[in-house]
Amino acid sequence: MDYVYGPGRNHLFVPGPVNIPEQVIRAMNRNNEDYRSPAVPALTKTLLEDVKKIFKTASGTPFLIPTTGTGAWESALTNTLSPGDRIVTFLIGQFSLLWIDQQQRLNFNVDVVESEWGQGANLEILASKIAEDREHTIKAICIVHNETATGVTNNLATVRKILDHYQHPALFLVDGVSSICALDFRMDEWGIDVALTGSQKALSLPTGMGIVCASAKALRATKTAKSVRVFFDWNDYLKFYKLGTYWPYTPSIQLLYGLRAALDLIFEEGLDNVIARHARLGQATRLAVQAWGLKNCTQKEEWYSDTVTAVVVPSNIDSSEIVRRAWKRYNLSLGLGLNKVAGKVFRIGHLGHLNELQLLGCLAGVEMVLKDVGYPVKLGSGVAAASAYLQNSTPYIPSRI
Amino acid sequence: MDYVYGPGRNHLFVPGPVNIPEQVIRAMNRNNEDYRSPAVPALTKTLLEDVKKIFKTASGTPFLIPTTGTGAWESALTNTLSPGDRIVTFLIGQFSLLWIDQQQRLNFNVDVVESEWGQGANLEILASKIAEDREHTIKAICIVHNETATGVTNNLATVRKILDHYQHPALFLVDGVSSICALDFRMDEWGIDVALTGSQKALSLPTGMGIVCASAKALRATKTAKSVRVFFDWNDYLKFYKLGTYWPYTPSIQLLYGLRAALDLIFEEGLDNVIARHARLGQATRLAVQAWGLKNCTQKEEWYSDTVTAVVVPSNIDSSEIVRRAWKRYNLSLGLGLNKVAGKVFRIGHLGHLNELQLLGCLAGVEMVLKDVGYPVKLGSGVAAASAYLQNSTPYIPSRI
Amino acid sequence: MDYVYGPGRNHLFVPGPVNIPEQVIRAMNRNNEDYRSPAVPALTKTLLEDVKKIFKTASGTPFLIPTTGTGAWESALTNTLSPGDRIVTFLIGQFSLLWIDQQQRLNFNVDVVESEWGQGANLEILASKIAEDREHTIKAICIVHNETATGVTNNLATVRKILDHYQHPALFLVDGVSSICALDFRMDEWGIDVALTGSQKALSLPTGMGIVCASAKALRATKTAKSVRVFFDWNDYLKFYKLGTYWPYTPSIQLLYGLRAALDLIFEEGLDNVIARHARLGQATRLAVQAWGLKNCTQKEEWYSDTVTAVVVPSNIDSSEIVRRAWKRYNLSLGLGLNKVAGKVFRIGHLGHLNELQLLGCLAGVEMVLKDVGYPVKLGSGVAAASAYLQNSTPYIPSRI
Amino acid sequence: MDYVYGPGRNHLFVPGPVNIPEQVIRAMNRNNEDYRSPAVPALTKTLLEDVKKIFKTASGTPFLIPTTGTGAWESALTNTLSPGDRIVTFLIGQFSLLWIDQQQRLNFNVDVVESEWGQGANLEILASKIAEDREHTIKAICIVHNETATGVTNNLATVRKILDHYQHPALFLVDGVSSICALDFRMDEWGIDVALTGSQKALSLPTGMGIVCASAKALRATKTAKSVRVFFDWNDYLKFYKLGTYWPYTPSIQLLYGLRAALDLIFEEGLDNVIARHARLGQATRLAVQAWGLKNCTQKEEWYSDTVTAVVVPSNIDSSEIVRRAWKRYNLSLGLGLNKVAGKVFRIGHLGHLNELQLLGCLAGVEMVLKDVGYPVKLGSGVAAASAYLQNSTPYIPSRI
Repeated sequence: MDYVYGPGRNHLFVPGPVNIPEQVIRAMNRNNEDYRSPAVPALTKTLLEDVKKIFKTASGTPFLIPTTGTGAWESALTNTLSPGDRIVTFLIGQFSLLWIDQQQRLNFNVDVVESEWGQGANLEILASKIAEDREHTIKAICIVHNETATGVTNNLATVRKILDHYQHPALFLVDGVSSICALDFRMDEWGIDVALTGSQKALSLPTGMGIVCASAKALRATKTAKSVRVFFDWNDYLKFYKLGTYWPYTPSIQLLYGLRAALDLIFEEGLDNVIARHARLGQATRLAVQAWGLKNCTQKEEWYSDTVTAVVVPSNIDSSEIVRRAWKRYNLSLGLGLNKVAGKVFRIGHLGHLNELQLLGCLAGVEMVLKDVGYPVKLGSGVAAASAYLQNSTPYIPSRI
Repeated sequence: MDYVYGPGRNHLFVPGPVNIPEQVIRAMNRNNEDYRSPAVPALTKTLLEDVKKIFKTASGTPFLIPTTGTGAWESALTNTLSPGDRIVTFLIGQFSLLWIDQQQRLNFNVDVVESEWGQGANLEILASKIAEDREHTIKAICIVHNETATGVTNNLATVRKILDHYQHPALFLVDGVSSICALDFRMDEWGIDVALTGSQKALSLPTGMGIVCASAKALRATKTAKSVRVFFDWNDYLKFYKLGTYWPYTPSIQLLYGLRAALDLIFEEGLDNVIARHARLGQATRLAVQAWGLKNCTQKEEWYSDTVTAVVVPSNIDSSEIVRRAWKRYNLSLGLGLNKVAGKVFRIGHLGHLNELQLLGCLAGVEMVLKDVGYPVKLGSGVAAASAYLQNSTPYIPSRI
Repeated sequence: MDYVYGPGRNHLFVPGPVNIPEQVIRAMNRNNEDYRSPAVPALTKTLLEDVKKIFKTASGTPFLIPTTGTGAWESALTNTLSPGDRIVTFLIGQFSLLWIDQQQRLNFNVDVVESEWGQGANLEILASKIAEDREHTIKAICIVHNETATGVTNNLATVRKILDHYQHPALFLVDGVSSICALDFRMDEWGIDVALTGSQKALSLPTGMGIVCASAKALRATKTAKSVRVFFDWNDYLKFYKLGTYWPYTPSIQLLYGLRAALDLIFEEGLDNVIARHARLGQATRLAVQAWGLKNCTQKEEWYSDTVTAVVVPSNIDSSEIVRRAWKRYNLSLGLGLNKVAGKVFRIGHLGHLNELQLLGCLAGVEMVLKDVGYPVKLGSGVAAASAYLQNSTPYIPSRI
Repeated sequence: MDYVYGPGRNHLFVPGPVNIPEQVIRAMNRNNEDYRSPAVPALTKTLLEDVKKIFKTASGTPFLIPTTGTGAWESALTNTLSPGDRIVTFLIGQFSLLWIDQQQRLNFNVDVVESEWGQGANLEILASKIAEDREHTIKAICIVHNETATGVTNNLATVRKILDHYQHPALFLVDGVSSICALDFRMDEWGIDVALTGSQKALSLPTGMGIVCASAKALRATKTAKSVRVFFDWNDYLKFYKLGTYWPYTPSIQLLYGLRAALDLIFEEGLDNVIARHARLGQATRLAVQAWGLKNCTQKEEWYSDTVTAVVVPSNIDSSEIVRRAWKRYNLSLGLGLNKVAGKVFRIGHLGHLNELQLLGCLAGVEMVLKDVGYPVKLGSGVAAASAYLQNSTPYIPSRI
């Protein structure tokens, strides 16, 4: 059974789950295997080694947990912290809000730094909190690298500078769900203690794998962290890593082979080229938005996200209607505005295994929808602006011929 | 092993092989089966019944031959004609040329009516030939419904009118390779004796199945046709049809299941809606070409093709370079100019399981390529013209929700 | 990249992950979709309704959690209980041991009833504990329906009888990981409060979905359960059930379509026929073991499992060598002996979408391996015993022809 | 739509189409591509080079024709011979009969050497015909290497010796449909002029590709061969080989990628190891037949086929009922007896990507069917005989771990 909506391909431009490359779909098209056979550990070994490269870490320890981003969050928090621990965290959109909700329900002492939706994390307040915290009551900084609801990218290097400046020992926990493999991300250089992403984002896999990487310091923190955890307990994984069998419980064989194919594609293109590609597509999208005469929800250029653009619609238009109509009329999947920005923004996801013409097709679709709902857009204007930029710049294109 | 060229999906806009719907790819993702088991005949029975609908025939007999369009041509000719038989045929582009070459090599007496490439078949000459042929030396009219090389659609109803007017008994053989399932096609109403297509065209399957449909008159012609044939002999098929086992030799199980899925999709959308969709996409493409200030290779509107548009480039530009660059730089597959129009036209295929945003992505790509090769196109202009038309008209969209 | 071991199909006879039907592999062979589009909820709605049938519940509420069996356990416990709550639980093999380990780490007051490995849960001790517990300090009974490590099936109806006899209000939590969809399981009739399974077991899907079903009483228990939970919190799901969007976080689109196909196959065969098929294959396996002169690890017939048979090897043979050799030499995947029975038993999983000839091929392989490792088996003897039984009995075989 | 017959995998043991390896199914799970892009020729180039290895030819020229074995036959004959040419050919079973029928309908002067079905080609008669033919009226010898209907393998080396002995210039045309890639086959060493097979046989692909290899002498013969041919004309291929675009008409992209994967698997195992594997499985099958007290249709050991065994049933049993019942009751696909041996034999195909346990499962199934139809077989006896042989011998098993 399928839930067809019209002929042709669905144009998937939500900021996750994203389009899966044919190579990955093929790699996952397989029967189950015995995960205790020699084959699955042999495969796992290569994955654990190679997945570290997408975090840009040499010393980190990765975990491939059969869960979603929400579970990856929970594993980051419960493995390193104890109930009552003070954590500083930033509320800037729906996904940071959900993580904060989790932090609170896990009984941490959550110190929330709030910004207007569309702004980045207020790192000046962080600096003052860190400066004041001479007794090191702050146990962790929790920050979303890229807020998927508003298209805001935070500056992680600055967070590290602040901690270093005050020689503060707080753990540095980062949600890289809509950033890792798409935006510049440097776990070791920025001294990140736990970084995490989900398989269905820039890795372009199906949902089902939370990919978490822990620094040596984070692993040490597990010894004293009193948060209750079993399914998410890293030490259960480490026990099996030592045995060379790797899995405390059954992994998805298909996702492992999918991850292998996804990493191979990323390394073939080159991680830095992948990131540069996202930068080009992000810029092209923003130029289109500008050409339409619409506002980016992100308030300053320093926060512009190269994986998702939240577009503010005029107050007389309901952005949900844009998303609904795009899907029903044009087989185009856009992201809804969430919570505070519900009805006010729609989102274009431009992450994952994607190219210029796919994006331009999406932009052409958005223009038609805008016109459909009564916004006086000039058809072709966004496509013109985006393609002028794309045509002028030179991407790196991998080839095997 | 894959031959990757860049990230994201390939934008396949050659006029065949065309994009395969995910539903069909899925249906074909299977092991072999015993074609002498009860399952394969049960499946085949439904296919033979349903495939007649895409020809709009009730009385025709279909054959699903494991071959290509070239083989389907050969089956049409050798089953109905004898060496030396006079046939009237039309040379209007590369594919009619190739069919004529086959007709000559099969030793028929081939009476070629030639037109300039970009024009349709000269039916006035046909009328005069038929008028003169009181002794019925003409045994067959062979005509390509849609010349894929130039984007020219011939008027089959007129051919029938001419034959009827003179009560001429010539067989009416039609190459519907790039028309059937995409353009208006009426086998019974137009009195067509053999119609044929290939699986990789509007049916949106892989290559490998020549689909041929024969009228009762064509079947009678097999009794006297002296052309040598074994692999392509319809009577071998008919023998197995009678037995209820259907296959004189091994079919591709995968293509049979793929055809089932393809037909299901077509019937779900409605064949007439599928044809209307092609008309819309064809018109949108022509409006883009006009907006770019380029000429359609097809010289008159009456011949415009809704499955492929051949675009004439200025004489200072080599159209092959456009096709080459589209592929290397934008992952966009366009059709080359062939033979007489090599270097002079490039072709946009807009047939098969395709939607508006896919086409607009293609058009945006063509614009960038045109600019790359030095043609002073206004970026966005073609997309604007096409999307204005598309946004204003209302397609039928099937849904299961 | 594949980890090939020899030509031909792998013979997968571990008790999970099990063989995936081609229909399910096909259904999962697809791109991602927007899970906030109307399509995914429409699909989910049918799944939630239909999945209840495999639990034989009308009143239960199902949850399809992106996790494994271990996570499903955690969701069952944390949603219904508070730290310190007394639970009675049964240690009869490796998987009950692991669940008990989780119960302890989640800080419950775990009252363990231990049996020799190879025996079922000691329900007499349960009865006496329940009888004594007039103050209802026991908050839950946790029992593994089918212990996968030893091939022991516990009698759930008796548990319910004991609770009813003493009118004891303890929650009745059941691990049905290697039973549901394969063994007789009646959630409503047996008054089970939480039942759970994993997608990679009798449902014959990839790993990645924990399927949990909660009674109305279990849902009420969530109001007072103080165990910390976020990712596994049922109430987050219920919130989205009410909205009709169903998902608190991103599901695996592929697994949802896979589950749809798996359920369709089960209903087509008929759940009771599926269970009868497992009974036949289980009995055939046991007859083969007997013919080989080997002992079933399960000590009494009342506990025989129709999904997995643990075979005891003579003391001079290391069962791990049997498993290793089966894989390397015959492309046959058998289950290792775990923990207390490591080296002493190997396991044949006979659950999921499986037929007689697949099982007989496995049995023929086991015979050769036994001979390889020096056990004086008569080749063909087990196959003879199994096939004599199978040939004499009449299975129900679904057909579409 | 699927035509399900019972749970679990179908056991496919007809002598073609055979089981497709998962690696090949995966490789074919893809969209169409432009066959005029640089990717398809790059792939084709590797295929044409590598496919020669399975013929054991260095100097031959291969053609990958979108057709079946019947079409491959037609291409072999029409490219090298003229109507009226005398050919010596051998009638030993249904497939040689069908080829002879084709030879006759193509208007050759067909000199048929007939043997009893179950015997090999009578090469003594060939020798005497060649000896007598001092004027070289015999233009070609046509021989089926392995007669699939009776399980008879002819001695090709002897044919070459006879021709050489008399220095006879006749072309040596070989149907290797059920032999190439499975039986010892040496195109260059045996001086074969045209050899051919079909994709769905030992190569373990779907149907749809006729693979033909022509010697330099055969290519020279095309210059004078007057048989009418267009679709099957090798010279059309050679024209495109020179251009480096390779295809005179559209190939199946999917089959090309499938062939790449199939060849990779064969080379990984090693062609000689693949052939040795077939020898082992063939011998095991014959031992089982013997143990059942049944006769091999093949009358002498020198003709035993390692790809298919035709089993003679007692005269009171209808072998068609065995095939029918195997399919309906056990999901086991066996080959029917054809024509002269209809009702008298059933056939077990043991070719392609297959292993020991798959075969033993099949044999166990045959035993049960035999019992079902009233033959007094001892269950397990065939499996015992086959597995005793298999267990004692040491296969080569490729591994990547």
